[in-house]
Parts: sequence; structure tokens; C-alpha cells
Amino acid sequence: MNPFVHPQARLGRNVRIGLFSYIGSGVIVGDDVEIGSHVIIHDRTWIGDRVRIGDHTIVGKAPMRGKGENTPPARIGNNVQIGSGSILYRGCVVEDCFIADLATVREHVVIGRKCVVGRGVALENHIHIGDRVKLETNAYITAYSRLEDDAFVAPCVVTSNDPFAARAPRPIAFKGVHVKRGGRIGAGAVLLPGVTVHEEGFVAAGSVVTRDVPVKTIVKGVPAKPYRTVPEDQWLSNLPPRSP
Amino acid sequence: MNPFVHPQARLGRNVRIGLFSYIGSGVIVGDDVEIGSHVIIHDRTWIGDRVRIGDHTIVGKAPMRGKGENTPPARIGNNVQIGSGSILYRGCVVEDCFIADLATVREHVVIGRKCVVGRGVALENHIHIGDRVKLETNAYITAYSRLEDDAFVAPCVVTSNDPFAARAPRPIAFKGVHVKRGGRIGAGAVLLPGVTVHEEGFVAAGSVVTRDVPVKTIVKGVPAKPYRTVPEDQWLSNLPPRSP
Amino acid sequence: MNPFVHPQARLGRNVRIGLFSYIGSGVIVGDDVEIGSHVIIHDRTWIGDRVRIGDHTIVGKAPMRGKGENTPPARIGNNVQIGSGSILYRGCVVEDCFIADLATVREHVVIGRKCVVGRGVALENHIHIGDRVKLETNAYITAYSRLEDDAFVAPCVVTSNDPFAARAPRPIAFKGVHVKRGGRIGAGAVLLPGVTVHEEGFVAAGSVVTRDVPVKTIVKGVPAKPYRTVPEDQWLSNLPPRSP
Repeated sequence: MNPFVHPQARLGRNVRIGLFSYIGSGVIVGDDVEIGSHVIIHDRTWIGDRVRIGDHTIVGKAPMRGKGENTPPARIGNNVQIGSGSILYRGCVVEDCFIADLATVREHVVIGRKCVVGRGVALENHIHIGDRVKLETNAYITAYSRLEDDAFVAPCVVTSNDPFAARAPRPIAFKGVHVKRGGRIGAGAVLLPGVTVHEEGFVAAGSVVTRDVPVKTIVKGVPAKPYRTVPEDQWLSNLPPRSP
Repeated sequence: MNPFVHPQARLGRNVRIGLFSYIGSGVIVGDDVEIGSHVIIHDRTWIGDRVRIGDHTIVGKAPMRGKGENTPPARIGNNVQIGSGSILYRGCVVEDCFIADLATVREHVVIGRKCVVGRGVALENHIHIGDRVKLETNAYITAYSRLEDDAFVAPCVVTSNDPFAARAPRPIAFKGVHVKRGGRIGAGAVLLPGVTVHEEGFVAAGSVVTRDVPVKTIVKGVPAKPYRTVPEDQWLSNLPPRSP
Repeated sequence: MNPFVHPQARLGRNVRIGLFSYIGSGVIVGDDVEIGSHVIIHDRTWIGDRVRIGDHTIVGKAPMRGKGENTPPARIGNNVQIGSGSILYRGCVVEDCFIADLATVREHVVIGRKCVVGRGVALENHIHIGDRVKLETNAYITAYSRLEDDAFVAPCVVTSNDPFAARAPRPIAFKGVHVKRGGRIGAGAVLLPGVTVHEEGFVAAGSVVTRDVPVKTIVKGVPAKPYRTVPEDQWLSNLPPRSP
């Protein structure tokens, strides 16, 4: 029932580990870290200071296909809080973020600071996420996507990256989505492969986005069409300063 | 490999616990209870009689942010059946219900009797659910929502509660959805913040609901508009009596 | 911390099992099998050769309601790879497939060869899936459905099977969806109960499908209407031969 800490793992000061957890070989854990029960930290994962990892979470999973062995270990930086039942792969880099329950973060995903990754969010491989990005419950971000600073993705948003729906002439060129600085996507919206949401563009809930969304423009409908300008009091430049 | 039962937990008669499970301090478990393997029951959780809890489930998790310490322990009443890989937080109250696999039930959620919470359903914090409510697979219920007796939520329904999409002037006033008695929401429908589905109103599958749904009225489309009256043979008052 | 292998389980050659895992009574495991940590293999499950099962996965779970005791054990054939945190029930049959993380496969589900079941996919009970079918992240397939060879289901597709939305005169006749050979469904589309997608039919992303989709026809919109013929270079008969 005691956790198993590999003799070649290195723990900092004030590290607490729950029952039945496993800390693998070569893992490095910083100071003031709290690890729940039934947690698995795979070999060589790097964990910073003031990190909390919830029960049943897996960190540093090797990719299941492809060049898994060459993927660098997961890097969980300082001040990261991870919920329960989540899975973070090798090759992800996270710092100063909140990741909720049942989320999955694949290899080659970089997440900036002060981000929130909601319950059940799936971040596929090769995604780049800026600072202060918020992804709400069950949002799905397809591989090869980019979300810039202050992007907002509401619950259950759907993205896709295969313009040929599995019938491309080989080799396949996947096209993720690109949400530029401050772009926002409403609940349950669907974004087609390769779509760009330009700076502070807004996709209304339930829309199906087949074309790029212009700067500071609200689009809505199926297919989504420009509707009006984002209200000025919602522009990033007009927001009150954030609490730190 | 034996489960770990804290010496200050109190188990009733005929309690079976699987391997590698952990029952915390101050937990009270009733009679005729079956707990799977790798289950975590956090401190002070209260579990009634004739409860079944599946493998890998977590009960009584503390909220990750905010006033977690003040949240009362989870109360799992009699005749509750919970699937595998689910997460129930402190401050939830459930009785005589069925909760399937990979569901999450946050703090300050009260669920009535004879409800079904489907696979992967996410119930956010501060939700009140009446009796005989059925939430199907992957339905997402946003915080501060209310579902009255006999409500029905089909698979993959999406709700939302932030009318400003993360750009509100502070303080933010979240507005959940309100489904009144016997209201029904079809598969994949999206409900905007603050929407009310009135008594026995029906949202057709795939609709995007921007306005309240009138009593006993079917709405459909993007945005959803009234279409016709709910057929009389589907009114609650005309249904045959339920088997107990 | 060592795994627990029931004395009446039978393991082949070169079987590796991670920490805190449990292999039940009467389980049969083939050769060259790799089982992760915290895995639960329930009694009498049959596992073939060259199978990999990820951490925290459950295989052979008994159905929670109904005639669970009569359901045959799970059969995981040769060359199956299963991710982490997934749940496979008794009565499922899989061979030579890839199943990703957090997927659920219920009882009486048969999956053909060379299929991909994506992250978070939910396959309800009584589903038949042919060969080379690809189900992407979070796709939801309702009970009593059938997906024929070479079907493709994009991320977050929603299906449903209750034409009366929980208000049917008893007995209820559930009607799943039927995707015929090579049929494809785009991201986030919603299919109503009983819909058939005929051979190589294509549902555009975000559509709501209320009627059958004709052969080799693209439908789109809410409700979905025929739009044009699937481009010839995407017909199965015109694709280059697959790599084995």
C-alpha cells in the first residue's frame, strides 16, 4: 500500500505521495509537491516546485505509436496543478497552469503560463498554446493546432484537421486550427480543418466554421457568417488589469 | 495488494472491497456494500446501504480551488450504483441513483432519486437535479444549473453559463440553464447561458437554443425556433404508470 | 506493489505486468504481452498474443445492469493495443486493433480488424463494427448500431437511438445508426435514431442528419440535405492500395 519510489528517483523537500503510487526511475521532483494516490509518474519525468497531482493521474506516458522512444520526458514546471484521472504524455511541457480531471495532453504539446485546461479536454499531439489560454470542459483540440495568448475555448468545442476525411492521396497534410491572440470560440462550435480565427475574433456557440474568422468579428450560423463587431468593452485592450 | 482501510473508518456488515483500494479516515460505510479495486474513498465520506462502487472510482475528492476545506464530505445514500473511473467530489449528495463510468460530479451537486447519470457525464459545481432525471452519455451540465423532476438530457448535450465568454466586467455572473419539470433536450443540442426550458418543452437534436423554450413546445434549428406542440402521447400526464 | 496474479490465471511466455495490477481467476494471457500498471483484468478474460494494455485500464468488466452474469468473458485477440484509462466490458470481441486512452467498449460489441478506436470514444452495447473502421476522438456510437468496413467517424460525432426521447410507449424499440461500407461522418455531426448512411455517403462536419444519406452523396446543413457527389478520387475503388 505504500507508494513505490524507484531508488533512482530524486525527491525534493516536503514531497507527499499517496498510497499505491509509482514514481519511476530517473524522475526528478522539486520541493513542496503533493502527489495523490494511484498516481503513475513514468521514468525520467521532470516535476518542478509547488506541483499538485491528483489521484489516478499518469504523467510521462510514452506515445503509443511512432517514434515514442525519441520523445523527451514530460516537463511539469513550477506551480502546476493537475486533477484526477488525467494523462500527460512524454514530450509535453507545462508550467504554472491548472489542468482539471480526465484531461489528456499528448506528446509535443507546449502550454504557456496561467492557462486553464478543463475537465476532459483532449489536446492531441503537436499543439502550441500561449499564455492565459482557457480551455473549458471537454474542448477538443486537434493535432497541429495553435492557440495564441488569451484565446478562449468554451465547453465541448470541436476541431478537426483532416480535409480529406481519411481519403487523402498520401502523404496526408493535416491542417490544425489557429486561434490568434484573444480569439474566442463559443460552446459546441465546430471548426473545420485549417481554419484561422484572427485576433479577437469570436465564434458564436453552435456555429460551424468553414472559413477564417476576421479580426474582432463575431461569426455565427451553419456555415458561420460575419454578424457584427465584437463589443468594444470585450476587447483585450479595454479590459481592467488582471489580478496577478 | 490488500485494500487499505484506515483504522478510523467504520464498515457495516457484508462490505466487500477489491484489491489496492483505499478507504480513508472517518469514512462510514453501510451494510451490503461492494467496492471495486483501485477505488479511493476520501476521508469522512459517508456511504449508505446497498451501494456498489466500480473499479478506479474516486469518491469525496476535495475541490481543487477555492474554499475546498469548508466543503462537507460526500454523501452517497442507499441504493447508489457507481461505475468505473468516475470522480465524485466532496459536497455532492446522491441517493438511489445510477451513475455510469467516467462521470464527474463536482461539489455542491444534489441529485434526486431514481436518476441515471450516463457514461462520461460532467456535472459541474452547484447543480440541483430532481427525481427521475436521465442524463445520457457525455451530456455536459454547466455550473449553477437546475434540472427538475423527469427532465431528460440526450447524449452529448452542451450547456454553457458565461454570457461574456471570459470577458465579463468583474464580478462575473454565471447563468446556468434551467430545465423545468419534464423538459427534454435532444442529442448534441447546445444551450446558451441562462436559457430556461419550460415544463415538458422539447429541444430537437442538434439545435442551438438562444431563447427560452415554451411549455410543451418543440423547438428546432439554429437558432432554435418553435416548431410544434409536443405530441400528447408523450406528455407526462398521459404516460402509463412507471414500474417502481 | 507487485502485481497480483491469481493462481488460476495462465500466462504465456514473455508477459510483463506493471505494478499494482490485478490479473483475475481464469484469465488466459498469450505470448509477448505487455500490461501496464494499475491494470485490472477481470476473471476469465481471454487475451491473445502481442497485446499491449496501458496503465489504469480495465478489461472484462461485468455489465452493471441486466443479465451481466450470462455475458461471456471479454476476448482480446492478437495484436491489440489498448491505451490508458480505458474500460472494456465482458462480451466484447476485439482483434488486431488500436484502442486509445479513456475509451469505453460495452458488452456485445464486436470490432473487426485494423480498426482505430480513438481517445474517449464510447461504444455502447450491441454494436457491430467491420474492418478498417476509424473512430476518432470522442466519437459517440449509440447502442444497436452497425458500422461496416472502411467507415470513418470524425471527432465528436454524436449518434442517438431513442426516437421517443425517453417517452416511448413500452416496450421501447431502440434504433441505432447504420453506416454502410465506406460511409463517412464529419466532425461534430449529429445523427438521429435509425439513420442509415449508405455506401460511401458523406456527412459534412456539423450537420444534423434526419434522413438517410444516399450512396456516394455528400449531405450538409441543419437538417442535412444532399449537396453533391463524393469526389471520385475519394471513392474506395480509386484509392491506392493500402500498406499492409
